[in-house]
Amino acid sequence: MYPNRNLFEKYITKDEIELIHEYTLKILSEVGVIIESDAAAEVFKKNGARVEGHKIFIDEALLKKGLSTVPKEFDIYSPSGKLTLGESAPTICAGPVAPTTIQDFENNTYRPANLKDVEQYYILQETSKVISMPTHSCQNTDDLDKSGDDFHTPQAAMGLKYCQKPIYQGNTITPINYKKGSLIEANRRLVKLHREFYDIWDKPVTMSNCCVLSPLAIGAEVADTIIGAVQENQPVIIISCSMTNLTCPPTLASAIVQDNANILAGIVLTQLINPGVGAVYGSVTSPTDMRNVQLATGAPEAVLMQMGLVAMGRYYNLPVRSGVSATTAVDLDFQCGAESMMTLMTGMLGKTDFILNAAGAYGGYNLGSLENFVLDEENIAYLKRVNQGLDITEDKLYFDLIKKTGPRGNYLKGRTPKDYRMENYFPNIFIREGGSPADVIEKNGNLVARARSVVNERLESYELPDVTTTQKKLLNEYLPEGYKYDL
Amino acid sequence: MYPNRNLFEKYITKDEIELIHEYTLKILSEVGVIIESDAAAEVFKKNGARVEGHKIFIDEALLKKGLSTVPKEFDIYSPSGKLTLGESAPTICAGPVAPTTIQDFENNTYRPANLKDVEQYYILQETSKVISMPTHSCQNTDDLDKSGDDFHTPQAAMGLKYCQKPIYQGNTITPINYKKGSLIEANRRLVKLHREFYDIWDKPVTMSNCCVLSPLAIGAEVADTIIGAVQENQPVIIISCSMTNLTCPPTLASAIVQDNANILAGIVLTQLINPGVGAVYGSVTSPTDMRNVQLATGAPEAVLMQMGLVAMGRYYNLPVRSGVSATTAVDLDFQCGAESMMTLMTGMLGKTDFILNAAGAYGGYNLGSLENFVLDEENIAYLKRVNQGLDITEDKLYFDLIKKTGPRGNYLKGRTPKDYRMENYFPNIFIREGGSPADVIEKNGNLVARARSVVNERLESYELPDVTTTQKKLLNEYLPEGYKYDL
Repeated sequence: MYPNRNLFEKYITKDEIELIHEYTLKILSEVGVIIESDAAAEVFKKNGARVEGHKIFIDEALLKKGLSTVPKEFDIYSPSGKLTLGESAPTICAGPVAPTTIQDFENNTYRPANLKDVEQYYILQETSKVISMPTHSCQNTDDLDKSGDDFHTPQAAMGLKYCQKPIYQGNTITPINYKKGSLIEANRRLVKLHREFYDIWDKPVTMSNCCVLSPLAIGAEVADTIIGAVQENQPVIIISCSMTNLTCPPTLASAIVQDNANILAGIVLTQLINPGVGAVYGSVTSPTDMRNVQLATGAPEAVLMQMGLVAMGRYYNLPVRSGVSATTAVDLDFQCGAESMMTLMTGMLGKTDFILNAAGAYGGYNLGSLENFVLDEENIAYLKRVNQGLDITEDKLYFDLIKKTGPRGNYLKGRTPKDYRMENYFPNIFIREGGSPADVIEKNGNLVARARSVVNERLESYELPDVTTTQKKLLNEYLPEGYKYDL
Repeated sequence: MYPNRNLFEKYITKDEIELIHEYTLKILSEVGVIIESDAAAEVFKKNGARVEGHKIFIDEALLKKGLSTVPKEFDIYSPSGKLTLGESAPTICAGPVAPTTIQDFENNTYRPANLKDVEQYYILQETSKVISMPTHSCQNTDDLDKSGDDFHTPQAAMGLKYCQKPIYQGNTITPINYKKGSLIEANRRLVKLHREFYDIWDKPVTMSNCCVLSPLAIGAEVADTIIGAVQENQPVIIISCSMTNLTCPPTLASAIVQDNANILAGIVLTQLINPGVGAVYGSVTSPTDMRNVQLATGAPEAVLMQMGLVAMGRYYNLPVRSGVSATTAVDLDFQCGAESMMTLMTGMLGKTDFILNAAGAYGGYNLGSLENFVLDEENIAYLKRVNQGLDITEDKLYFDLIKKTGPRGNYLKGRTPKDYRMENYFPNIFIREGGSPADVIEKNGNLVARARSVVNERLESYELPDVTTTQKKLLNEYLPEGYKYDL
């Protein structure tokens, strides 16, 4: 179905994969992984693992046991229906998490993100043909009321208000945004809110982002996210975002092996708590640019490390998440397009199962704009088309037409054939007109203007999902001021 | 050596390749190819082919014979040394041929190209770390004296003056730019000029671009280029640039099969004239965007057709050329970076043997700027790095350091390790700084300004190759006014 699912085979051999696996076992059994959670340590202890405080050690038998129950595929439900993650389904793309700064083209400035941006990012994700799982973009904006003991749920409620597609929990619950007690319970309550709002009670209704803490650790908040989510039978993604020579050793190979151990520890935890719960193996690890000690999210070495980690995930038969549409460019320029396209390749051409930050972020994840969102959508559509591959059958070879037309003949006759229309993707922002470049720009506007016009159309034609008064009341308990439903 | 040389295997199966081959034989034997040359028809006739006027038919035996003598690899010589094209060598990238319009950022305008642009494109190609074969960019500029009976050689002489790297003949000799008689002889004279200037007499010293005329034809001028070049034992590239639904049928598959037949006819011609001469199989075929009947050079379908044709070239064990850094964007914007990066993938990740227009052209080949040239160089360097792949050995896994550092440790200590420096490519135009985007731009300038600064450094530090008075006199016979050597 997806011919390029094993694209990684062109980058890493079976023997190299086995070597990484072998050293991963050494790391897991000799070095260990710190999981900052008593509950997690207890789970490992109960399953016979060596545990020293929060440091857990996993031997080959326990690893096998943990991996044996991970489903290759699972479904997530929401008012828009069922979304499948796994081998038989298309790559699930999700929007950006981080952007805290917005490039404001209208005023030619960069400014802090606000709740209006959160709303608009949700609307673009909900109306997107290529983003199938919206996430909360622009976390903890300046205009969000942070005086209460829970400013996480108000942000989650925004997603439920604007989207019918299932929502990805990219925004971790922490002691800062949630002061009401146990974070495990907070994660369970978050799932219950989705269930109640959707009136879907017995199925996965969301998925949570669980980023490990390199080197070889899982932080307290993330451990609580994993535990809370899987206790509620919700899938999670265990993801690494290491930086070479900083949070992992200097080489790409060493980053892969260390990340692999760290991610697997998280996957095993999910299965020891709830065997069979959905768990995805992922990485957006990137090199550090040592000239300024910055994460080089758009670097070619990021592609290679992520390709290597995709290979490891596939080796363990796990659903796989990869990066990303990532770049350190701070404008919608050539670099932004080039790096975003290159980094998307790993996931879109390798047909991984999930891509976060697939559209709408640049500047090393921290910068965003709606114009960037719709431009990234074009990149995704392009690579989706490439991933569909060639359709080579006798029919499609058109031998009879070639014979009839003959050398120096012309194929431009009559109506455009259905086969042509079926096989081609037509961008609506990227320009393809001929003639004088100045005239083309005069007529169509520059790229940012064309992107803006697409954004405006989407925002203007968007309508809030139709929900009941009960649903409105439920969300109004949480929605930020100014974003509550009128009752 | 190059792990991704067969990247095409992820896009086309062995059976599909065989099917295309089978129908290619039907086209070659039943439909035929028009080669607008009495000499070429005569060559085919002598070799037992069915020939009707200029239409030649090739059966399986003749195809096999023609393909059997093509070298898998060959060398081209120039004052800079030996350049190898083929399986064991890196991809040869060449500059752009067409740009007739220049985006002039200093004056914020688009203007016709001139001879100064020709000179500067040559200098950038000669000083490039990633372009190893310069070509004549900006053909037939307005300020070129076209009153004489030969304004092709003056343009070729410019390349010899500014470059020591071997030069690619992207500019076909035609009855318009050469009115002194036989074009076959003109092509032979062109080779001789290189030989004399280089004082290299018995080896390939250049390579010529031979674009077939879809559907299923080779035009008179290109036929003469092939004949003249191979008679002088110089390698040629037979290349297709078809447009779906216009010069080939509507589907991608039909474009591949028709192009394959057309290209093979050209390859066979080279070998029937001079068995063993270097001949490269290539395609930059792209879809037509039927909304405005324009060649969509940056489209995903272009990647797919070119990937399919790379597969066919590899099937016949031929050296292979692929596209391109191509885009229909008319500014150095997100689209320009994204499409240029995507279309380069076919060649750079598939490690084809030659890429023309690898840097410096956009706007469907017709638009150029030196700023674009150096930005494309970054894309090439990125994909070269990806193509180098991962280095996964026990040493590089750094197990001992991982064990010593342990969970939650820190790897940023002392001097940056050699392994890190060896494994990472550091762009010098693409930005990777952190902090406020406005500050980053304030400090470094925007992308076009950074590109311009790299261009200026290269132009300012360039020095003309040191040549003898005899060499200067030889070129002065041809060089345009204003570009002759002072003697």
